[in-house]
Amino acid sequence: MIIIGERINGMFRDVKAAVAEGNGKAIQDLAQRQIEAGARILDVNVGTSAKDQEQAMKWLVEAIQEVTDLPLAIDSSKPPVLRAGLSVCKNKALINSTSGEPNRLKAVIDLAVEFNADIVGLTMDEQGIPSTPEGRAEIGMRILVAAMEAGMDPQRVYLDPVVLPVTASQDQCKVMLETLDQLRMLSDPPPKTVVGLSNVSQGSKQRPLINRTYLVMCLARGLDAAVMDPFDRDMVDAMITSELLLNRQIYSESFLSAYRKSI
Amino acid sequence: MIIIGERINGMFRDVKAAVAEGNGKAIQDLAQRQIEAGARILDVNVGTSAKDQEQAMKWLVEAIQEVTDLPLAIDSSKPPVLRAGLSVCKNKALINSTSGEPNRLKAVIDLAVEFNADIVGLTMDEQGIPSTPEGRAEIGMRILVAAMEAGMDPQRVYLDPVVLPVTASQDQCKVMLETLDQLRMLSDPPPKTVVGLSNVSQGSKQRPLINRTYLVMCLARGLDAAVMDPFDRDMVDAMITSELLLNRQIYSESFLSAYRKSI
Repeated sequence: MIIIGERINGMFRDVKAAVAEGNGKAIQDLAQRQIEAGARILDVNVGTSAKDQEQAMKWLVEAIQEVTDLPLAIDSSKPPVLRAGLSVCKNKALINSTSGEPNRLKAVIDLAVEFNADIVGLTMDEQGIPSTPEGRAEIGMRILVAAMEAGMDPQRVYLDPVVLPVTASQDQCKVMLETLDQLRMLSDPPPKTVVGLSNVSQGSKQRPLINRTYLVMCLARGLDAAVMDPFDRDMVDAMITSELLLNRQIYSESFLSAYRKSI
Repeated sequence: MIIIGERINGMFRDVKAAVAEGNGKAIQDLAQRQIEAGARILDVNVGTSAKDQEQAMKWLVEAIQEVTDLPLAIDSSKPPVLRAGLSVCKNKALINSTSGEPNRLKAVIDLAVEFNADIVGLTMDEQGIPSTPEGRAEIGMRILVAAMEAGMDPQRVYLDPVVLPVTASQDQCKVMLETLDQLRMLSDPPPKTVVGLSNVSQGSKQRPLINRTYLVMCLARGLDAAVMDPFDRDMVDAMITSELLLNRQIYSESFLSAYRKSI
């Protein structure tokens, strides 16, 4: 499974401050520490407080790629901010994200083609988030078809079945797991899947326990990648152990440290 | 999910000693502590060292049912030992276990009918343990059919897709998960499933981590019950959290203690 490190996000106080102060060292340190902890893609989100989000995104991308060649997930709801990040990104890029809403989908796919980027496609559209796995899979199919029609390899699309907080939408946690099954059946090879994991525990007092339990459940249902906190060591241990039990890593007595050495 | 407490097993030194010394209080204490920790069925296995296994099984069953009315899983590979336990069991009984091997299957189903007991059916037979989900499901189907032909309600059969140690048969951990999917499709309502969880971590240095991770993966694939150690609090927390995420328990801030109070 691919860990997409979530920590470079203006929502976090340290990142917000680093952006405001132009403290590139702090951002580079966060990048390197996430990579050491297992991240293989770094999410980059300027948050909502930056005065000039396009400028802030460019600055973040440039700072990060000074210390790593790993792919960056350029994360924004605003196409101009996505474009700003992509325009300076020399590393492989993943656009996070589009939905199935036609205008947004077209705008993001156009960017992906222009900048040779992968995309994350959320299984929601202008009507909202369907409450059934079938409804979400149908939007997933629309996103795949749109990408293919624009000449993209469908394996460059990560479908995101939309994780909602267990505090707010408890039944939707199960629907999301069932959506993973449905998405896997859309094509052969199956489309890649990704979740924004931490959302499941928003507002809960047991965030780490809920996050790592849900991550293991997602892995048991075929998940390929997660935007998550690589600094949560118990969660990464749970992920490594899941990979072991799915026969994706050879067993050894010290399989946890073996995995960490291998990355 | 139903926790079947595994601790009353002559394999454990304390139980072996209690059986040898006729220390009923020690057994009753183990029974009560497992129930307080969340067990809803208690497994009863005399182990291999008792001089007279039939006598030891009777003694264990009689000691345990002095302190609880919960169902007992009478656990032995020997039909006379099963019969001995069933003959004195006033609580609801679950026979653990039969396989698909025709003679054993007939013997165990005859006992189940005679004593009005549920059964655990391992998806293995005289040929061994099939290496594919389809092969295991085929044996599961044979067990269900044999039970129905003897007049049993198929919902009284728990199919066990056979957990093997990750140290020995790493690919079989994934096959077991896939077997859970296959078993669910055998009938409507789906047959009940159970696993002997602890076997997955035999011989490993990371037993609790492997056990609880595999349990969560099994729950994500529809597992109904597990023979496991209810004293492993982290594992029970993981189980409760999985149930929450499957929408089988209402969310509250203190969902862990709410669950424990409710049992």
